[in-house]
Amino acid sequence: MRIEFDTGILAESVRDIPDFPKPGVVFKDITPLLADPSAFSSAVDAIVVSYGRGHIDKVVGIEARGFIIAAPVAYHFNAGFVPLRKAGKLPYETMSESYDLEYGEETLEIHADSFNPGEKVLIVDDVLATGGTARAACDLVARAGGDVAGLAFIIELSFLGGAERIKDFDFVSLLQY
Amino acid sequence: MRIEFDTGILAESVRDIPDFPKPGVVFKDITPLLADPSAFSSAVDAIVVSYGRGHIDKVVGIEARGFIIAAPVAYHFNAGFVPLRKAGKLPYETMSESYDLEYGEETLEIHADSFNPGEKVLIVDDVLATGGTARAACDLVARAGGDVAGLAFIIELSFLGGAERIKDFDFVSLLQY
Repeated sequence: MRIEFDTGILAESVRDIPDFPKPGVVFKDITPLLADPSAFSSAVDAIVVSYGRGHIDKVVGIEARGFIIAAPVAYHFNAGFVPLRKAGKLPYETMSESYDLEYGEETLEIHADSFNPGEKVLIVDDVLATGGTARAACDLVARAGGDVAGLAFIIELSFLGGAERIKDFDFVSLLQY
Repeated sequence: MRIEFDTGILAESVRDIPDFPKPGVVFKDITPLLADPSAFSSAVDAIVVSYGRGHIDKVVGIEARGFIIAAPVAYHFNAGFVPLRKAGKLPYETMSESYDLEYGEETLEIHADSFNPGEKVLIVDDVLATGGTARAACDLVARAGGDVAGLAFIIELSFLGGAERIKDFDFVSLLQY
């Protein structure tokens, strides 16, 4: 189920970068949005409002840009923050999940003790693209004992079809392209 | 000048990890602190209180753990957030600063348009160790037109002497080892 939210004011603070990270790709750069106090706090607040105060125990941020949105969302919720990192970065016992990228494979890791059983978890990242990362994050949170309450993204690249991969979950994306 | 702050309640939520990232090193793992809503929000609030509401325009977070603290500090200050990243990660025009590590060299980058001239900037990272990263961050922010109002860290590894490298600036560290 898609949660709808009117956040048209954010759109003007996203910048198109042609040919990044490789030729032919237009990268959606959110750094102007992050640098603008109104846009940044609006984005955080929109996610918090979408899921309701008091209903989230832990907010998972996906390395590295996901941390920037997930951490203030956790703070505003008065929830804990849990990092989901690339392989080898987390120092304690981990669980991992690998998934396919356009070229090659990526592995995400989470600390095995991140959740108390049944804790309500919100997963936050900057962009929903093909949904491979998002789906792996959902699977990893569930394996670690969390209950995925939903996902939230600043940007959804709708033409890549990522929504289909996470259709079993509630999610919110603030801007769609 | 060192700003003193009583945050003893945070100490019990930091976990020692022996031999990470390499043999002989005891890593201070802050993930239990981040996962505890009281400890996480206390750490963020302690930094905000140290610098005073209304006096910071931009908060710079250093990739990647620095993002997790810097972003909610920016949110609480109603300031903008600016990422300071490893080489090649930022998509727009960048300025860079290289510095020596124990083995080899590291390069940090910032978007060249991150600041309006004279904006007050707070630099946030998880750990102050030798001060090499912190000093490079100060230099880079100044070159990009920001006015470094100070720095903030969750942890200071005092025995590594990083404070000496940033003695020209105000800074706060919440826990010292």
